Amino acid sequence: MKELEKYHQAFEKYLENAITDKEPRQLYEPIQYIINLKGKRLRPMLTLLSCDFFGKDFNAALPAALAVELFHNFSLMHDDIMDNAPLRRGNQTVHEKWDRNTGILSGDAMLILAYQYFEEYSAPMFLDLAKLFNKTALQVCEGQQHDMDFETRDVVSIDEYINMINCKTAVLLGAAMQIGAIVAGAGESCKENIYEFGRNLGIAFQLQDDYLDVFGNPEAFGKQQGGDIISNKKTFLYITALQESNEVKKELRQLYNTSPKDANQKIARVQALFQTSGAADATLRETEKYTHKANGFLEKLSLDENKKASLKEFGKWLMKRTV
Amino acid sequence: MKELEKYHQAFEKYLENAITDKEPRQLYEPIQYIINLKGKRLRPMLTLLSCDFFGKDFNAALPAALAVELFHNFSLMHDDIMDNAPLRRGNQTVHEKWDRNTGILSGDAMLILAYQYFEEYSAPMFLDLAKLFNKTALQVCEGQQHDMDFETRDVVSIDEYINMINCKTAVLLGAAMQIGAIVAGAGESCKENIYEFGRNLGIAFQLQDDYLDVFGNPEAFGKQQGGDIISNKKTFLYITALQESNEVKKELRQLYNTSPKDANQKIARVQALFQTSGAADATLRETEKYTHKANGFLEKLSLDENKKASLKEFGKWLMKRTV
Repeated sequence: MKELEKYHQAFEKYLENAITDKEPRQLYEPIQYIINLKGKRLRPMLTLLSCDFFGKDFNAALPAALAVELFHNFSLMHDDIMDNAPLRRGNQTVHEKWDRNTGILSGDAMLILAYQYFEEYSAPMFLDLAKLFNKTALQVCEGQQHDMDFETRDVVSIDEYINMINCKTAVLLGAAMQIGAIVAGAGESCKENIYEFGRNLGIAFQLQDDYLDVFGNPEAFGKQQGGDIISNKKTFLYITALQESNEVKKELRQLYNTSPKDANQKIARVQALFQTSGAADATLRETEKYTHKANGFLEKLSLDENKKASLKEFGKWLMKRTV
Repeated sequence: MKELEKYHQAFEKYLENAITDKEPRQLYEPIQYIINLKGKRLRPMLTLLSCDFFGKDFNAALPAALAVELFHNFSLMHDDIMDNAPLRRGNQTVHEKWDRNTGILSGDAMLILAYQYFEEYSAPMFLDLAKLFNKTALQVCEGQQHDMDFETRDVVSIDEYINMINCKTAVLLGAAMQIGAIVAGAGESCKENIYEFGRNLGIAFQLQDDYLDVFGNPEAFGKQQGGDIISNKKTFLYITALQESNEVKKELRQLYNTSPKDANQKIARVQALFQTSGAADATLRETEKYTHKANGFLEKLSLDENKKASLKEFGKWLMKRTV
């Protein structure tokens, strides 16, 4: 989407001077490192776009957009420690490049820094922003906890799974958009509907992520195919397939109890089970359902039709994942 | 100090119902666990006392006092992971009782919860509280980083050491008092002076802690004598003693390069060196200097003389450490 490029550029320019070379270096360097690993900047772009669409110069939303991106990277920094992940965006994770304690403490400082960027706004706006941010940040922690809890649980229901990805991923996308609306001074119903648009799109986005991890073209998707299968992750596909028949259930459970060195055979068999059980199609349908729900909230927005069309376009772009 | 008892009781009562049994339990249980380990509640008492002394019902400061206590316990939870500490207040640390990931994530949630308790206040007050809290929280992280950096450094100056304990311990005591003043609606100079009173008292408090760790009566102090010597910690005593003579320096450095199983001999020798080098006396003088500075800020406060006398009394009580 071409329009997004201007938000992206403005954000990168703002970021250049935003995080200063403060002491102690061991605390602030990892923050500069992870924020400069150049993610997609999806969340800050959502904030800027939303502010723009609700009628205010999007530059006013730059500090808030940075707060959102700092929060996102704080959660990555700590999640990477918890998941023992060696790489992030193709580079060493902070706890690998430095050490675990650095990852914990720099992450903490990053979360506090995020709050600090909201100080740029007036008192009433600051309160609105911080309330939403507090609620969302707690939900993200809850989502991460549910995700870790699921690893050791035998049975996870579809509702529980949707709730987990809602907390871990979707609410931050909704909040990123609502934050832009708050900065623009949008009304209550606008703030509510743009939040629900972002949140539902976020659920669709994560469900698609589950699907693409198994069936995506690794080059276009940018991740190793079958990563979730290799790590025996209970995704929407897995949970749905388990509900199919006792035979599928038994075989899948057995496969998910193994961690073969050469995973190709296991991946191929799980792919086949996801297809024949109907779980693959069900995932696509569920993705479609949440995209549709998102667009429903779009309809309710009091915005020009051309802006609504742009937001719908944006949703499509997001689900295409060309970046 | 008898007056403190009413703040203590009010805080414990407020705390009983403040942190609800939310899901997921694995996230919120460790928060309830650590906050119920019954610390001295020094920081929240400071907030309540300050609010009371600046003329407002101290019950109005209870949510803010809880925010301060939650923040303090968040920092303990993460510091205990970083320090590999098995015990906290005589009980298992969170990462020992659960695991490391739980300690990281519950700590994160606890920090966010702290911010959430400020939502109880009006927008302008919320902004004032959050700004002070952001600044202080970042300084506490910086202090912890400096403390960890010092472990691997050969030379640490006295100024660097004072700056470290200022960040790691003192600013939170200053902030706890200023937060009470903000809730009471005190004027700028009152807020400034009560902060400096608390902060300087905090430095004195930590210097005394260094002293008591080496020379205190273990029963009254409540900690193992010589703990800092056993762990080769570069305290004010150590840094000051190093500056004495080349012989003391050489011997101390050698002693701090050892970790004997039976540390009694090492402790006795280091105690003697701290005495003969004059470092012990210098620490007492420095403690006195900061207590005096704290009382200087007290003089500047526009408060009734009997309240000033009570605050001075409080400072004395704090430095006596009978709790």
